[in-house]
Amino acid sequence: MKKIKVLAPATIANLVCGFDILGMALKAPFDEMTLSLTDEPGIVIKHTDEYNLPEEPEKNVSGAALLALMEEFKKPVGFHLTIHKHIKPGSGLGSSAASSAGAVVAANHLLGNIFSNEDLVRFAMNGEKIAGGVKHADNVSPCIYGGVTLIRSIFPLDIIPLNVPDLFITIVHPQIEVRTSDSRQILRKEVQLKNAIKQWGNIGGLIMGFMKNDFDLIGRSMEDVIIEPVRSILIPGFDEVKLKCKEAGSIGGGISGSGPSIFMLSKDEETANKIEGIMKDIYEKIEVDYKTYVTAINTEGVKIVEAQ
Amino acid sequence: MKKIKVLAPATIANLVCGFDILGMALKAPFDEMTLSLTDEPGIVIKHTDEYNLPEEPEKNVSGAALLALMEEFKKPVGFHLTIHKHIKPGSGLGSSAASSAGAVVAANHLLGNIFSNEDLVRFAMNGEKIAGGVKHADNVSPCIYGGVTLIRSIFPLDIIPLNVPDLFITIVHPQIEVRTSDSRQILRKEVQLKNAIKQWGNIGGLIMGFMKNDFDLIGRSMEDVIIEPVRSILIPGFDEVKLKCKEAGSIGGGISGSGPSIFMLSKDEETANKIEGIMKDIYEKIEVDYKTYVTAINTEGVKIVEAQ
Repeated sequence: MKKIKVLAPATIANLVCGFDILGMALKAPFDEMTLSLTDEPGIVIKHTDEYNLPEEPEKNVSGAALLALMEEFKKPVGFHLTIHKHIKPGSGLGSSAASSAGAVVAANHLLGNIFSNEDLVRFAMNGEKIAGGVKHADNVSPCIYGGVTLIRSIFPLDIIPLNVPDLFITIVHPQIEVRTSDSRQILRKEVQLKNAIKQWGNIGGLIMGFMKNDFDLIGRSMEDVIIEPVRSILIPGFDEVKLKCKEAGSIGGGISGSGPSIFMLSKDEETANKIEGIMKDIYEKIEVDYKTYVTAINTEGVKIVEAQ
Repeated sequence: MKKIKVLAPATIANLVCGFDILGMALKAPFDEMTLSLTDEPGIVIKHTDEYNLPEEPEKNVSGAALLALMEEFKKPVGFHLTIHKHIKPGSGLGSSAASSAGAVVAANHLLGNIFSNEDLVRFAMNGEKIAGGVKHADNVSPCIYGGVTLIRSIFPLDIIPLNVPDLFITIVHPQIEVRTSDSRQILRKEVQLKNAIKQWGNIGGLIMGFMKNDFDLIGRSMEDVIIEPVRSILIPGFDEVKLKCKEAGSIGGGISGSGPSIFMLSKDEETANKIEGIMKDIYEKIEVDYKTYVTAINTEGVKIVEAQ
């Protein structure tokens, strides 16, 4: 095998209360990436999208992830990578994770699947570091494993896949820019113990909601007393979206990753479509450009669609 | 029915990383309590044990729990309660929770089981407030529900029973006094966000360990970067117990509740007995009086043994 095409899905990190430890893969949107093995050692990256991302391997998130993989592969190897991103960088939908994860999953297939999924997460975190300044696995893990993943620890890596409930997800991406690194910097370095206790109760509840397919418990647990009150300030329309979508039957939701995208969960597609209408109305009214998605949980992660 | 005898079990709150949100009921030790309905409204409490606990209902943990129940029952009712405690107050093994929970479970049976388990937890928390100054449910919930419980929230109460793995528990209770109220006061009111993130990763891991019967995951997750480093200072021999018991095959463990008891989990009874020997050796060597227990998880909670 010399050439492979993969689809790398968007992901929702944190899932409201699980800052840095929970993430979920989505069926849409996704990036398209084609990776070829070349005779010439090294990495050549080409973007065919509109986002003007850097193409030097060391500055590119896919490149950084591939470099980490190549370092452990040890034998000299060359890659040619073409990326067409559909997940807008800075959307809060795991755009950098899709680039990192897609590249290393594709490379692993070309090299004969010698690395484990956990290895691939470890490599892909190098891409996250390029994008946001910090290694974190709450987007790259679900992107690679699919479904919903718990990251108990990143040093050493300890990834636990959860049960995947049959939920629908509505997302609105207000077209404003929130950089992951900025949205980390506005967080306080210390939190009150009483709030930390509330948060870990909710994390436990959310995980149990997934494990028991208990949608009401998922909803009750999707409350964040630490991060959301700070980050939501950066997102116009946030409070209204959350309130009105819950009134309209959404289980719950909140900021996707570091924002500005907002996700809301629903028990059925009809409600998910209704939620989309509510989101559109709100952003039309406040005159902020937006994009919406109605999707479901992606259980397979990065998908191989063509191999030659 | 006029008279009932119950056995109210010891419990392990926190389970290392789950401060205030996780707890587990034990088969031993347990308190014995006999409750009678009387014609005269009001509560009369008598202790037949050696602990000189107050017997005025308002100052007694069982009394405070019963008073909360009677307030919601509304009709005038009288109780005579005889308590023989085997769980030493201040042991960290949920002594006050056993008194509170045992009393309200017994009263509910005498009144025709009109209250739910959740109601009973709510009443029993009034006993916890008498004992430690704070309403908390991480001992009374498992004491009433049995097994392992997650308390997502106490206001409003949201209790989620977890799967119960087939584990053995070895406990050592060094005979020193640590008051729950003192051991709360030495905790810092603020925690570092990075430590809170580690803690919630471990909480998620611990819950998933229980749900998947994954003993290694339970062990890896039983790490507490916030409470244990502070509280363990009050417990002589703590570091040595934890280290040597793990070396001898224990899955993991730590402080039971607010201490000074230490619990260690094992996959089989043979290891649990070996762990007991190690604990004994350590406290013999440092010349601190101690008591040990080898027990298992109690899945039924407060147990009715006689009813007339």
